[in-house]
Amino acid sequence: MPKLSKRSGMAYESPIRKLAPSANLAEAQGKKVFYLNIGQPDILTPASAIQAVRDADIPILKYAPAKGITSFRKKLLKQYRDRGFQLDLEDIFITNGASEALQLLMMACLDSVDNILVPEPMYANYIGFSEMANATIKPLTCHIENGFDLPSIEAFDAAVDEHTKAILICNPNNPTGAVYTKEKLTELGHLCKKHDIFLFVDEVYSAFCYDDETFFSALQLEGLEDHVAVIDSVSKRFSACGARIGYILCQNPKVMEAINKYAQFRLSAPTMGQIFAEALIDVKDQYLVDVKDEYIKRRAVLYSRLSAMEDIVCYQPSGAFYVFAQLPIENADHFCQWLLEDFEYKGMTIMLAPGSGFYASSGVGQDQVRIAYVLNEQDLEQAMDCLEAALKVYPYRTKARTREIIEV
Amino acid sequence: MPKLSKRSGMAYESPIRKLAPSANLAEAQGKKVFYLNIGQPDILTPASAIQAVRDADIPILKYAPAKGITSFRKKLLKQYRDRGFQLDLEDIFITNGASEALQLLMMACLDSVDNILVPEPMYANYIGFSEMANATIKPLTCHIENGFDLPSIEAFDAAVDEHTKAILICNPNNPTGAVYTKEKLTELGHLCKKHDIFLFVDEVYSAFCYDDETFFSALQLEGLEDHVAVIDSVSKRFSACGARIGYILCQNPKVMEAINKYAQFRLSAPTMGQIFAEALIDVKDQYLVDVKDEYIKRRAVLYSRLSAMEDIVCYQPSGAFYVFAQLPIENADHFCQWLLEDFEYKGMTIMLAPGSGFYASSGVGQDQVRIAYVLNEQDLEQAMDCLEAALKVYPYRTKARTREIIEV
Repeated sequence: MPKLSKRSGMAYESPIRKLAPSANLAEAQGKKVFYLNIGQPDILTPASAIQAVRDADIPILKYAPAKGITSFRKKLLKQYRDRGFQLDLEDIFITNGASEALQLLMMACLDSVDNILVPEPMYANYIGFSEMANATIKPLTCHIENGFDLPSIEAFDAAVDEHTKAILICNPNNPTGAVYTKEKLTELGHLCKKHDIFLFVDEVYSAFCYDDETFFSALQLEGLEDHVAVIDSVSKRFSACGARIGYILCQNPKVMEAINKYAQFRLSAPTMGQIFAEALIDVKDQYLVDVKDEYIKRRAVLYSRLSAMEDIVCYQPSGAFYVFAQLPIENADHFCQWLLEDFEYKGMTIMLAPGSGFYASSGVGQDQVRIAYVLNEQDLEQAMDCLEAALKVYPYRTKARTREIIEV
Repeated sequence: MPKLSKRSGMAYESPIRKLAPSANLAEAQGKKVFYLNIGQPDILTPASAIQAVRDADIPILKYAPAKGITSFRKKLLKQYRDRGFQLDLEDIFITNGASEALQLLMMACLDSVDNILVPEPMYANYIGFSEMANATIKPLTCHIENGFDLPSIEAFDAAVDEHTKAILICNPNNPTGAVYTKEKLTELGHLCKKHDIFLFVDEVYSAFCYDDETFFSALQLEGLEDHVAVIDSVSKRFSACGARIGYILCQNPKVMEAINKYAQFRLSAPTMGQIFAEALIDVKDQYLVDVKDEYIKRRAVLYSRLSAMEDIVCYQPSGAFYVFAQLPIENADHFCQWLLEDFEYKGMTIMLAPGSGFYASSGVGQDQVRIAYVLNEQDLEQAMDCLEAALKVYPYRTKARTREIIEV
């Protein structure tokens, strides 16, 4: 048999999806599975945008331009300008979801000798994309004790070496739910300017900030036009993960030119997804107000249930829709697989994402899990009933290492 | 300003799309541009499949599974089995177009020290994808004199070295229109088995064979289940390039497992595109019969017009919908840009893809162009009027190097 690539043998496996076969098994066994592993909300997608695709006259389903459909980009531009952002049309590039946006940014800015600083736990697929781009992630470990707050600016400064080309943060953070302040971002911006490196910010969850008044985008940092690139997507904001529409916002024309070169190889992002996403821009603000209210309720359910369980360490997240919790177990990979394959509670079980996969450092986060609160309150309550019951009977249960419930 | 990656500075530029700014300029000048540079047909997309998206009940536009929507994969499987192919469900993987299919295959099978043998001229983006995968293309040059027939099996054999991991061919060939016989494929298959390397076949144009009775798929090669991977797509067959739906067909479970790992990072191919593509399977065979008839007419127009022009060397392609022709010019890059920026004929001009970009070898094909016959006969006639007029006034016209019109 011909040999596969060595890299594929060593390739990182997505903690979010790698247990899919076990989940299929659980369903085949007739169990009801609550999917808290993946950020796939059960919120209704705006019907008006689905209707826009129905209404579209599509005699020929053509390629879109590599940068995205112009009318869509123009409308997006207008929306940003109306909010006071100083962008131009050429600063907007439409991609196959935020996933491809990051891949393209990495190809444009990083060579194989380069590294990128990323606080961990991090969105797991960053690790996969950096592997695909042959670049290295240099992680800065955050801690559950302070709600996974960003490492100090001194820690970032100390971590920059001659091969560091960028800092990448996710704000609000997936998987921790931490939201970073204007002050923190300004500090990071200064640091990037000082070292003349890029600041990539994944703002996919910007609509989901629960405690502070306004979200501060890295695009609002002054004098950092050449350094900042923002990744965004319609997936989470509009419960439209299947559209596969994201975008890169960046005011550095050289970066956009390099992205365009790589993007031309894949021709274009999906045309129907772009028609859909263009229509999303007209969705009334009330949609997001309602969605946010709904997530605030869900967060309360999840946090109160987790807080009430013995030996679980967690904190109330300020944004996004995940809690990154520490469980009284040794090995979350085993626990999550066991939940699907060997456990059930009243015919139900839950799928969680094991924590270690969200760390680029090895051996960290093995007793942690990411729990998405993307299901309605009733489902979440039932899912938490499952977790509570599971922790009572899991054969490898341990005592928690830190006792206190953390208030952020 | 922070430095971009070195690789992006050296990155190959798509000959198919790199002149897009010049085309925009031509349109802004009020010229009618005939787009013969890109394989974007003007054939109507099957309305029933567009209708299937309209009829779909999509309360939440969810992620699809990483491998693709199961009902779609099952239906595709049935179609292949009905045609006598011995495939299983796990041998089918849905991708973001054939583009992503090739990227995933390269990640799964090639490391950065590895090379892949590809006859040239080749589909230009193969070069881009191999750069992104950090692998090397080792080209085998084909010649216009014999209609760009496949190099001899001895030439392939001699080119295999210790780092060769695969042979990649496109059948029917983009950009040359050559169609490879069962005998040729069988020989190639034996060679791959002998050296224990992969055989990747891009069969995106399999519906477009004009002269021979039946297309022979590499999936029909016996005893090569571990070696063969086929790339396909709905883009060309159903004039649905904007769906961004392709797939990988491969019976080697290790390859599919590696592909799955990488594909999980990008989560899924577009959901609406998959609903659409699933409905395409029900499109009546007559659609493709009619489309093929139409392309045969267009081929005749293009070939007869090109043959009648002085000093052009070309041949009648047997498949796909491109002619790769040699023009009486020194530098097709300059000529194609000049056509858009400095030329017009009765308010019209044409966009062609310069030939050198389809070669991985440098300095080859500089007097060649790829011409797609994706427009209707009337448009093609007008486009050829433009070409004929252009060659009369182009300031750097040369004599052709080879005089005869080639009959394949």
